[in-house]
Amino acid sequence: MMRELSVDLGEARSYPIYIGENILEDIVELFKRRGIPKGSPLLIVTDNLVAPHYLDRLTGLLETGGYKVLHTVVPAGEQSKSLEVFEQVITAALQGGLDRNSTIIALGGGVVGDLAGFSAASYMRGVRFVQIPTTVLAHDSSVGGKVAVNHRLAKNIIGAFHQPQMVVYDTATLKSLPEREVRAGLSEVVKHGLIWDREFVAWCGEHSEELLNLQQAALQHALYEGCRIKSLVVSQDERESGLRAVLNLGHTIGHALEAVAKYQELLHGEAISIGMVGAAILSVRMGNPEYIYTETKKLLQKFRLPVSIPEHMDTEAIMRAMMHDKKFKEGTMVFVIPADIGKVEIRGNIPADWVRETIEQLKKEA
Amino acid sequence: MMRELSVDLGEARSYPIYIGENILEDIVELFKRRGIPKGSPLLIVTDNLVAPHYLDRLTGLLETGGYKVLHTVVPAGEQSKSLEVFEQVITAALQGGLDRNSTIIALGGGVVGDLAGFSAASYMRGVRFVQIPTTVLAHDSSVGGKVAVNHRLAKNIIGAFHQPQMVVYDTATLKSLPEREVRAGLSEVVKHGLIWDREFVAWCGEHSEELLNLQQAALQHALYEGCRIKSLVVSQDERESGLRAVLNLGHTIGHALEAVAKYQELLHGEAISIGMVGAAILSVRMGNPEYIYTETKKLLQKFRLPVSIPEHMDTEAIMRAMMHDKKFKEGTMVFVIPADIGKVEIRGNIPADWVRETIEQLKKEA
Repeated sequence: MMRELSVDLGEARSYPIYIGENILEDIVELFKRRGIPKGSPLLIVTDNLVAPHYLDRLTGLLETGGYKVLHTVVPAGEQSKSLEVFEQVITAALQGGLDRNSTIIALGGGVVGDLAGFSAASYMRGVRFVQIPTTVLAHDSSVGGKVAVNHRLAKNIIGAFHQPQMVVYDTATLKSLPEREVRAGLSEVVKHGLIWDREFVAWCGEHSEELLNLQQAALQHALYEGCRIKSLVVSQDERESGLRAVLNLGHTIGHALEAVAKYQELLHGEAISIGMVGAAILSVRMGNPEYIYTETKKLLQKFRLPVSIPEHMDTEAIMRAMMHDKKFKEGTMVFVIPADIGKVEIRGNIPADWVRETIEQLKKEA
Repeated sequence: MMRELSVDLGEARSYPIYIGENILEDIVELFKRRGIPKGSPLLIVTDNLVAPHYLDRLTGLLETGGYKVLHTVVPAGEQSKSLEVFEQVITAALQGGLDRNSTIIALGGGVVGDLAGFSAASYMRGVRFVQIPTTVLAHDSSVGGKVAVNHRLAKNIIGAFHQPQMVVYDTATLKSLPEREVRAGLSEVVKHGLIWDREFVAWCGEHSEELLNLQQAALQHALYEGCRIKSLVVSQDERESGLRAVLNLGHTIGHALEAVAKYQELLHGEAISIGMVGAAILSVRMGNPEYIYTETKKLLQKFRLPVSIPEHMDTEAIMRAMMHDKKFKEGTMVFVIPADIGKVEIRGNIPADWVRETIEQLKKEA
């Protein structure tokens, strides 16, 4: 069974997301359906952890289907989202003779997606791009067309908006994920519920164990809903001028925690989990009902996600990291705040004192 | 007096080109007209040859107008169109605190325009971009939104389509250009006539001396017409899927000559001049009237532009360089061929033998 979802961005740039177990087997049929040309070489970008599992199989399937296939394998991890590794991908594309009709395929998680996506956006000023996510978290990055690499001074600062031709989400590939990565990925699924859909939040609460165990029917439903909500938001605000900012629920505090921990101690989804609890605390501080905080926290705990800041992290260091975050426009402090479960608002001018208090409280959460 | 031309690309991305002597003095008024925000810092990107002439003046004008202005000065020349220098520009942007409402300004010729433009396209996935060209050649690169840096294996291979907010063409700045650069820049002006407008070609022939002497009225008319023709073509084909290829008249052979000369011996406009004579030879070889060749050659000679290939250049090396040019789609040879003076066609499957004969003939032209 294959679920199909359309990310609607106007005729030229709309694209489908296919979700299903073992749908990698149908890759040639899907490529054909989307008109990926056979005359020009394809380049698969993947990492050294994913390659042993799926690279040969994907290459074999595509070659049997008549495609010329090249690949480049980068080291797993955030370090590969650099200009240096980006240049290596471009070199591989040039040496492999990729032309304007070529397609770059991201086989892996968010890092590979971002790296391959920015390569596809820039190579010859833009070639086709296909995403084959192999992580739960990548359900998030595979919708919306945001691609980027890091600069040593800031994450995701060098990038583009470049929509894929399609996303092929084979949920069987998630079985090779470490459990901690699964949990962290589900954090973004839950986030999509919290910003948009109270019913889906309730469903997540009831199905947390099935999701943590990668039970396929539940997993496919959750990924479908996560992608659906994100694509609804993105469709209405492709270039991130306003509405799209709601997707940053939990990210202001979360990014700061990641930065202070030097991207070592906390996975992105874990940091976002703590950040969502922080946003809920701020919400209650603003006068919203207490249950927004208690329900948010309880839900994240069901997914065995962290809801408190490790004590050793310095409050002022976290505050400073937040001030540098690119989401602060012209010096004002902006937060995405839950107005209810399944509903958020963007609030400007949140007093720094409230934020500091929230950080302190998060260090005491059990 | 200020001429104004609109590059029409649909509401969100259309932009004006302002052309006039000493219009740099009006920069604050023009920034205001285009709504360049004052709350976020501006970054001027320029090179070490242009900076001594105009950087302080431009900075002073903008600061007096209430803008916060930063700058980064890169070495003059094609070497600065690299990922390394691009990274330096991004570092300057980050260290200067540029945010999503900031504007990056290109003050200089085509290299600075391409480098600053790709930086503006990529920084935070895209910030505002303003071009202040200081060369004749930049009339060409300032229309169309093509921005890029080079890879050691290929020119302009890493880039984007990113339209400026406006182009401010102060023709007084051209007075600091070396004469050879003026001639080479006029080569692209003539090219625009040759692909689109027989009357403008005739006008160029009659006004070559005034143009070479930078007589202001003639220069402004020529730049206006060059920009107008290019913007007509670009408006109809922003993403370079078809029509826009006509702008590559002379570029297939021209790029190959530049590459074989390792970008040392021939300026871009000079290489294109020879390439346009080559395209005219191919046109006659295909059965078109002889005058296409004789008039093209005569016109370029009036501008004291080269019309022959330096004898020491190896024909086979030129042929090989052409085969690597990204304009060859899936191995076929495509040329832009004049069908008449002021009219071109895109022709596929030009026999390699004809091209080789043309190269040989170009080595014998006087």
